Amino acid sequence: MTPPPGTVLAIDHVGLAVRDLDEAVARHTRWLGAAPVVREEVEPDGIVAVLFAVGSARVELLASRRPDSAVARFLERRGEGLHHLAYRVADIAAALPVWEAWGATLIDRAPRRGAGDRWVAFIHPKGSGGVLVELCQERGP
Amino acid sequence: MTPPPGTVLAIDHVGLAVRDLDEAVARHTRWLGAAPVVREEVEPDGIVAVLFAVGSARVELLASRRPDSAVARFLERRGEGLHHLAYRVADIAAALPVWEAWGATLIDRAPRRGAGDRWVAFIHPKGSGGVLVELCQERGP
Repeated sequence: MTPPPGTVLAIDHVGLAVRDLDEAVARHTRWLGAAPVVREEVEPDGIVAVLFAVGSARVELLASRRPDSAVARFLERRGEGLHHLAYRVADIAAALPVWEAWGATLIDRAPRRGAGDRWVAFIHPKGSGGVLVELCQERGP
Repeated sequence: MTPPPGTVLAIDHVGLAVRDLDEAVARHTRWLGAAPVVREEVEPDGIVAVLFAVGSARVELLASRRPDSAVARFLERRGEGLHHLAYRVADIAAALPVWEAWGATLIDRAPRRGAGDRWVAFIHPKGSGGVLVELCQERGP
């Protein structure tokens, strides 16, 4: 049975806000037993994202490159730690109106390019139990 | 090649602190396309844990049953949201001294029984980038 559009298929990744990227990369390389698989500057967001594979999911370290980035504001307000939870969906464009109908507050009204070959869209923590949720779908070649 | 003891194999689950458990269960049942797989009172911790399967991982909702529980204190301090990140290891008893040697601050010095048929041990956020990390291993039958 095909699940309805919008249904989460897996945890795609967990995003962590970090202050000292080099230290966090070294620590996760040790914990997760392998070097990062992706390191990407995300210019429009003013961040750098470093991704580690862990089983079928990923851990994403997020460091700020600008004092006005969302990650910089998060670090100022909450400190280092868990930043967002990213769910994999089959069709992100179809998922967004479904999530909105379910009561979610969309931050991105259309999918945009994220780090690590993903289409992504964020859901506001208000209406999702205080969790910044990211929906994502792998980008085809 | 066998990874060294302590190496994380997968994201086992992500723990979310919630105020209104019924609302959060309804919302996650819709998002994740299926009812919870486990609902367990964890008496010593003064909490109830509700687990959903999502791909090869789980989402764990944590609600407080006592005003002095760790989850109650978390909700008071930080509000609802992402609470901890649980990593699966092959042998938790072997992993703990390795993590300590790596600089982690152990909250549990020995594995204890967690919700959903797991041996668990928590690592202090101090020394793990502000993230409350849980190591866990499936309990055999």
